[in-house]
Amino acid sequence: MAKDPHHPALDEVALTTVLAALSDPLRLGLVRLLSDGVERQWGELDAPVANSTLSHHLKVLRSAGVTRTREEGTRCYVHLRTDELERRFPGLLQSLLTTNGHGATEVGIKNPRQSA
Amino acid sequence: MAKDPHHPALDEVALTTVLAALSDPLRLGLVRLLSDGVERQWGELDAPVANSTLSHHLKVLRSAGVTRTREEGTRCYVHLRTDELERRFPGLLQSLLTTNGHGATEVGIKNPRQSA
Repeated sequence: MAKDPHHPALDEVALTTVLAALSDPLRLGLVRLLSDGVERQWGELDAPVANSTLSHHLKVLRSAGVTRTREEGTRCYVHLRTDELERRFPGLLQSLLTTNGHGATEVGIKNPRQSA
Repeated sequence: MAKDPHHPALDEVALTTVLAALSDPLRLGLVRLLSDGVERQWGELDAPVANSTLSHHLKVLRSAGVTRTREEGTRCYVHLRTDELERRFPGLLQSLLTTNGHGATEVGIKNPRQSA
Protein backbone atom coordinates (compact mmCIF):
# COMPACT_ATOMS: atom_id res chain seq x y z
CA MET A 1 0.00 0.00 0.00
CA ALA A 2 1.31 3.45 -0.88
CA LYS A 3 2.66 5.54 1.99
CA ASP A 4 2.54 9.23 1.30
CA PRO A 5 4.90 11.72 2.96
CA HIS A 6 3.61 14.77 4.81
CA HIS A 7 2.37 17.72 2.79
CA PRO A 8 1.50 20.94 4.64
CA ALA A 9 -1.77 22.71 3.97
CA LEU A 10 -0.80 25.82 2.04
CA ASP A 11 -2.76 28.04 4.43
CA GLU A 12 -0.21 27.08 7.08
CA VAL A 13 2.79 27.96 4.93
CA ALA A 14 4.30 31.44 5.27
CA LEU A 15 5.40 33.32 2.18
CA THR A 16 8.92 33.57 3.62
CA THR A 17 9.10 29.75 3.76
CA VAL A 18 8.15 29.46 0.09
CA LEU A 19 10.58 32.21 -0.93
CA ALA A 20 13.39 30.42 0.93
CA ALA A 21 12.51 27.17 -0.83
CA LEU A 22 12.58 28.92 -4.21
CA SER A 23 15.78 30.86 -3.58
CA ASP A 24 18.03 27.91 -4.38
CA PRO A 25 19.10 27.63 -8.04
CA LEU A 26 18.42 23.88 -8.29
CA ARG A 27 15.06 24.11 -6.57
CA LEU A 28 14.01 27.00 -8.80
CA GLY A 29 15.12 24.91 -11.79
CA LEU A 30 12.96 22.01 -10.59
CA VAL A 31 9.95 24.32 -10.20
CA ARG A 32 10.47 25.73 -13.67
CA LEU A 33 10.67 22.22 -15.14
CA LEU A 34 7.56 21.07 -13.27
CA SER A 35 5.60 24.16 -14.27
CA ASP A 36 4.39 22.28 -17.38
CA GLY A 37 2.05 20.46 -14.98
CA VAL A 38 3.40 16.99 -15.77
CA GLU A 39 4.05 14.62 -12.88
CA ARG A 40 7.62 13.31 -13.08
CA GLN A 41 9.28 10.28 -11.65
CA TRP A 42 12.33 11.32 -9.63
CA GLY A 43 14.51 9.01 -11.74
CA GLU A 44 13.54 10.95 -14.86
CA LEU A 45 14.93 14.22 -13.55
CA ASP A 46 18.22 15.17 -15.13
CA ALA A 47 19.98 17.50 -12.68
CA PRO A 48 23.73 18.12 -12.29
CA VAL A 49 23.83 16.83 -8.70
CA ALA A 50 24.05 13.50 -6.84
CA ASN A 51 20.79 11.62 -6.29
CA SER A 52 21.00 12.23 -2.54
CA THR A 53 21.28 15.98 -3.15
CA LEU A 54 18.38 15.93 -5.57
CA SER A 55 16.32 14.01 -3.02
CA HIS A 56 17.14 16.60 -0.35
CA HIS A 57 16.00 19.47 -2.56
CA LEU A 58 12.79 17.66 -3.51
CA LYS A 59 12.04 17.24 0.20
CA VAL A 60 12.59 20.95 0.85
CA LEU A 61 10.11 21.79 -1.92
CA ARG A 62 7.57 19.33 -0.53
CA SER A 63 7.95 20.60 3.05
CA ALA A 64 7.41 24.17 1.88
CA GLY A 65 4.19 23.19 0.16
CA VAL A 66 5.51 23.82 -3.34
CA THR A 67 5.32 20.26 -4.67
CA ARG A 68 3.44 17.07 -3.96
CA THR A 69 5.35 13.78 -3.76
CA ARG A 70 3.66 10.45 -4.39
CA GLU A 71 5.29 7.14 -3.61
CA GLU A 72 4.36 4.06 -5.57
CA GLY A 73 6.26 0.91 -4.75
CA THR A 74 9.92 1.88 -4.87
CA ARG A 75 9.31 4.90 -7.08
CA CYS A 76 8.68 8.51 -6.15
CA TYR A 77 6.76 10.94 -8.31
CA VAL A 78 6.57 14.70 -7.98
CA HIS A 79 4.36 17.45 -9.33
CA LEU A 80 3.92 21.15 -8.71
CA ARG A 81 0.94 22.28 -6.57
CA THR A 82 0.20 24.91 -9.20
CA ASP A 83 -3.46 25.71 -8.52
CA GLU A 84 -3.05 25.71 -4.74
CA LEU A 85 0.02 27.98 -4.96
CA GLU A 86 -1.84 30.36 -7.23
CA ARG A 87 -4.72 30.61 -4.77
CA ARG A 88 -2.41 31.11 -1.78
CA PHE A 89 0.20 33.38 -3.41
CA PRO A 90 -1.50 35.01 -6.40
CA GLY A 91 0.90 35.87 -9.20
CA LEU A 92 4.00 34.51 -7.49
CA LEU A 93 4.54 31.46 -9.67
CA GLN A 94 3.89 33.42 -12.84
CA SER A 95 6.44 36.05 -11.88
CA LEU A 96 9.06 33.34 -11.28
CA LEU A 97 8.46 31.73 -14.64
CA THR A 98 8.45 34.88 -16.77
CA THR A 99 11.69 36.34 -15.41
CA ASN A 100 14.74 36.07 -17.63
CA GLY A 101 18.18 35.60 -16.11
CA HIS A 102 16.56 33.84 -13.22
CA GLY A 103 19.71 32.16 -11.91
CA ALA A 104 18.05 28.74 -11.90
CA THR A 105 19.97 25.55 -12.59
CA GLU A 106 18.88 23.85 -15.79
CA VAL A 107 16.99 20.65 -15.00
CA GLY A 108 15.95 18.36 -17.84
CA ILE A 109 14.28 15.05 -18.47
CA LYS A 110 16.46 12.02 -19.11
CA ASN A 111 16.28 10.10 -22.31
CA PRO A 112 13.80 7.25 -21.66
CA ARG A 113 16.51 4.69 -22.36
CA GLN A 114 18.75 6.26 -19.71
CA SER A 115 16.05 6.43 -17.06
CA ALA A 116 14.89 2.85 -17.45
CA MET B 1 30.34 65.15 0.24
CA ALA B 2 27.95 62.21 0.28
CA LYS B 3 29.49 58.79 -0.23
CA ASP B 4 27.05 56.29 -1.65
CA PRO B 5 27.39 52.53 -1.12
CA HIS B 6 27.40 50.08 -4.00
CA HIS B 7 24.13 49.25 -5.71
CA PRO B 8 24.11 46.45 -8.29
CA ALA B 9 22.47 46.98 -11.65
CA LEU B 10 19.31 44.89 -11.52
CA ASP B 11 20.18 43.20 -14.81
CA GLU B 12 23.09 41.60 -12.97
CA VAL B 13 20.96 40.29 -10.10
CA ALA B 14 19.60 36.75 -10.31
CA LEU B 15 16.05 36.03 -9.24
CA THR B 16 17.38 33.50 -6.70
CA THR B 17 19.39 36.29 -5.03
CA VAL B 18 16.31 38.48 -4.69
CA LEU B 19 14.19 35.58 -3.39
CA ALA B 20 16.85 34.80 -0.77
CA ALA B 21 16.88 38.45 0.29
CA LEU B 22 13.09 38.45 0.62
CA SER B 23 12.84 35.11 2.42
CA ASP B 24 13.74 36.59 5.80
CA PRO B 25 10.76 37.77 7.90
CA LEU B 26 12.35 41.08 8.91
CA ARG B 27 13.55 41.87 5.39
CA LEU B 28 10.13 41.08 3.95
CA GLY B 29 8.65 43.35 6.63
CA LEU B 30 10.98 46.16 5.58
CA VAL B 31 10.03 45.71 1.93
CA ARG B 32 6.35 45.79 2.78
CA LEU B 33 6.81 48.98 4.81
CA LEU B 34 8.85 50.64 2.04
CA SER B 35 6.34 49.65 -0.62
CA ASP B 36 4.51 52.94 -0.02
CA GLY B 37 7.36 54.54 -1.98
CA VAL B 38 8.46 56.86 0.81
CA GLU B 39 12.18 57.18 1.51
CA ARG B 40 12.83 56.50 5.20
CA GLN B 41 15.68 57.42 7.47
CA TRP B 42 17.09 54.28 9.11
CA GLY B 43 16.52 55.83 12.55
CA GLU B 44 12.80 56.11 11.80
CA LEU B 45 12.39 52.37 11.31
CA ASP B 46 10.72 50.66 14.23
CA ALA B 47 11.79 47.00 14.12
CA PRO B 48 12.03 44.51 16.98
CA VAL B 49 15.79 43.99 16.57
CA ALA B 50 19.04 45.69 17.59
CA ASN B 51 20.27 48.52 15.36
CA SER B 52 23.24 46.43 14.23
CA THR B 53 20.88 43.65 13.12
CA LEU B 54 18.64 46.11 11.31
CA SER B 55 21.69 47.57 9.59
CA HIS B 56 22.78 44.08 8.47
CA HIS B 57 19.38 43.33 6.94
CA LEU B 58 19.28 46.70 5.17
CA LYS B 59 22.66 45.89 3.63
CA VAL B 60 21.42 42.50 2.41
CA LEU B 61 18.46 44.21 0.71
CA ARG B 62 20.74 46.79 -0.89
CA SER B 63 23.25 44.18 -2.09
CA ALA B 64 20.45 42.16 -3.68
CA GLY B 65 19.25 45.22 -5.60
CA VAL B 66 15.99 45.49 -3.70
CA THR B 67 16.57 48.86 -2.03
CA ARG B 68 18.66 51.96 -2.55
CA THR B 69 20.57 53.46 0.37
CA ARG B 70 21.58 57.11 0.45
CA GLU B 71 23.98 58.53 2.98
CA GLU B 72 23.75 62.17 4.00
CA GLY B 73 26.10 63.32 6.70
CA THR B 74 25.74 60.80 9.48
CA ARG B 75 22.31 59.69 8.38
CA CYS B 76 21.28 56.84 6.09
CA TYR B 77 18.10 56.80 4.06
CA VAL B 78 16.52 53.87 2.26
CA HIS B 79 13.88 53.41 -0.38
CA LEU B 80 12.56 50.53 -2.46
CA ARG B 81 13.69 50.26 -6.10
CA THR B 82 10.06 49.67 -7.05
CA ASP B 83 10.06 50.60 -10.74
CA GLU B 84 13.36 48.86 -11.48
CA LEU B 85 12.21 45.69 -9.68
CA GLU B 86 8.96 45.71 -11.61
CA ARG B 87 10.81 45.95 -14.93
CA ARG B 88 13.27 43.21 -13.97
CA PHE B 89 10.90 40.81 -12.18
CA PRO B 90 7.39 41.63 -13.44
CA GLY B 91 4.67 40.93 -10.91
CA LEU B 92 7.00 39.73 -8.15
CA LEU B 93 6.64 42.70 -5.82
CA GLN B 94 2.90 42.81 -6.28
CA SER B 95 2.57 39.13 -5.41
CA LEU B 96 4.58 39.67 -2.21
CA LEU B 97 2.43 42.58 -1.12
CA THR B 98 -0.98 41.02 -1.78
CA THR B 99 -0.34 37.75 0.04
CA ASN B 100 -1.98 37.35 3.43
CA GLY B 101 -0.23 35.43 6.21
CA HIS B 102 3.05 36.37 4.66
CA GLY B 103 5.22 35.56 7.69
CA ALA B 104 6.81 39.01 7.63
CA THR B 105 7.89 40.79 10.80
CA GLU B 106 5.89 43.93 11.46
CA VAL B 107 8.06 47.00 10.89
CA GLY B 108 6.67 50.43 11.74
CA ILE B 109 7.69 54.07 11.81
CA LYS B 110 8.76 55.57 15.11
CA ASN B 111 6.93 58.43 16.68
CA PRO B 112 8.80 61.60 15.55
CA ARG B 113 9.55 62.48 19.15
CA GLN B 114 11.16 59.08 19.70
CA SER B 115 13.28 59.18 16.56
CA ALA B 116 14.71 62.65 17.16
